[in-house]
Amino acid sequence: MVAAEDPESFFATAPPLGDAGAVAARLQEFVARNSSHPSSEGGGRRRIVCVTSGGTTVPLEQRCVRYIDNFSSGHRGAASTEYFLKAGYAVIFVHRRGSCQPFCRFLPDDSFLKFFDVTTESKVQVVESHTTVVKKAIGEYSKAIEGGALLKLPFTTIFEYLQLLKMVATSMSSVSLHGMFYLAAAVSDFYVPWDSMAKHKIQSAGGPLDMKLSQVPKMLSVLRNQWAPMAFCISFKLETDSDILIQKAEMALNKYKMNVVVANLLATYKEEVVVVSNGERNTIRRCNADEDLEEHIIKLLEKSHSNYIYSSTDDGCNKNDYETLVPLGIKSLA
Amino acid sequence: MVAAEDPESFFATAPPLGDAGAVAARLQEFVARNSSHPSSEGGGRRRIVCVTSGGTTVPLEQRCVRYIDNFSSGHRGAASTEYFLKAGYAVIFVHRRGSCQPFCRFLPDDSFLKFFDVTTESKVQVVESHTTVVKKAIGEYSKAIEGGALLKLPFTTIFEYLQLLKMVATSMSSVSLHGMFYLAAAVSDFYVPWDSMAKHKIQSAGGPLDMKLSQVPKMLSVLRNQWAPMAFCISFKLETDSDILIQKAEMALNKYKMNVVVANLLATYKEEVVVVSNGERNTIRRCNADEDLEEHIIKLLEKSHSNYIYSSTDDGCNKNDYETLVPLGIKSLA
Repeated sequence: MVAAEDPESFFATAPPLGDAGAVAARLQEFVARNSSHPSSEGGGRRRIVCVTSGGTTVPLEQRCVRYIDNFSSGHRGAASTEYFLKAGYAVIFVHRRGSCQPFCRFLPDDSFLKFFDVTTESKVQVVESHTTVVKKAIGEYSKAIEGGALLKLPFTTIFEYLQLLKMVATSMSSVSLHGMFYLAAAVSDFYVPWDSMAKHKIQSAGGPLDMKLSQVPKMLSVLRNQWAPMAFCISFKLETDSDILIQKAEMALNKYKMNVVVANLLATYKEEVVVVSNGERNTIRRCNADEDLEEHIIKLLEKSHSNYIYSSTDDGCNKNDYETLVPLGIKSLA
Repeated sequence: MVAAEDPESFFATAPPLGDAGAVAARLQEFVARNSSHPSSEGGGRRRIVCVTSGGTTVPLEQRCVRYIDNFSSGHRGAASTEYFLKAGYAVIFVHRRGSCQPFCRFLPDDSFLKFFDVTTESKVQVVESHTTVVKKAIGEYSKAIEGGALLKLPFTTIFEYLQLLKMVATSMSSVSLHGMFYLAAAVSDFYVPWDSMAKHKIQSAGGPLDMKLSQVPKMLSVLRNQWAPMAFCISFKLETDSDILIQKAEMALNKYKMNVVVANLLATYKEEVVVVSNGERNTIRRCNADEDLEEHIIKLLEKSHSNYIYSSTDDGCNKNDYETLVPLGIKSLA
């Protein structure tokens, strides 16, 4: 089992990504075009963030009928993508297929047919009560797509996710300090290595099932140390037990050399997060249900990223790239 | 572990359905109204079918972050529901939340925003190329809802699914022979009993994970023997290995006293099924990609159901209820 927990053998044994060539070409074009694009904030280059979103699956059979999934609607990643775009970032949105999409958060689930009616002139139209929200969603989405600042890449399994993350990190290495990783996806901790996986559907006649899962290699270390040593990295910690949450977040901060860890509890993740960075803990809490927690998180991270670039640029000659630079000023809203 | 595999202790230990009271009331009203409704085919009463669709999940933690899922888009259940409605059945559509819905099968995934544009008069309209398919979907859906012949009940976990199935079966007992169960959902074979489940998120620091899963009690037996002894019952068998498929289907037919078992392989389930009934095996194969396999399956089942009612009605006095009755005539399209 030791071999499978090593990053190199993980990639060596993973089923290869179907369209790896096409994805690599799209990434290369997206990064080249956006990194040479002037920042919308005036001064400097457009920054690029990789937002990961939704849960990864772990197949239990090669011809997969059963799989382990991680709970995640993808709402946080989708909302954050909107605010990163507003803040002038180009966004590579690495998301679970079928999870929540940017600009679609306010569209009700399972409502496609309830949303529309057919008029007497036999035209399809949006039901009056939903017009505003649909119009806003379509307008903002079209603007982001036309601006060329949003690239959406889907995954389902842990194998696809980690291969995509590696490709994105590799293609973003050229933007160095201007790159950010915002790792909001719920990534499996345990998996079945492909070569030790049952080929066919596991039969139930054999009685209770005893399943042995290996640990997924800790790719945050690999991301930080090998793939993106200069990028500004934010990871997320979700727990259900408040007693261990902050301790686990600080461990992750140190162990994986993240710049920021966003800590949240399953029971309250929509209302409150704790943003943990070196020596600081800031609670961001939502004041009312109409407000997006993500708006505050992204404002704070944008400032921290500016500060990170500023403090890492040793000779100061590029400092006027960041006219909008403000002090770190992490503000507790609690 | 033996106790947990017994149906009674499964229900006794399962977390109770949140809105059980409201669901029971809706079911009662739906069954009463539809079973007294004249059949659209002329003569006789409207029949009722319970279609189950999509996969059930098995939570691995009580405050659930991880769960085992069963692959199923819900396409077969959704398509079958449409054809049952066309054939004059009232349908109770017990489906996985977020899975494919009747009349929405032809709407592309992840396309909500691509489907519409905002006109110069600032109205939201369907993109020209998609108008026909959207109009058809909305029209057919509205008709089904207005006709009162479709009841949709969602589930996520195996606990919710089996409690719903029990409630539906109980409420359908009054329609006796006129009831049908079309069990297309991909139901978990293994689960973790609620009272032996980890309360909090399983920590990954502890090394590889050794997970012991119990067998889900065989509820097909309970359905047939206790909940719905008179109904016409169809179950599905999905395998990945063609060598064992038919044998497993015939075993299910005998063991659970199903009227029909529909056997399919993961690799070809969209193109071909084998309909196994007592002493007969009929292959239904799709001739072209525009055709729905489900249209043929439901035609065949409707005839078999008529025949079942006819042959079970011993004194013959109700026979003219079924003027459209045809001989079993299961036709192989292969």
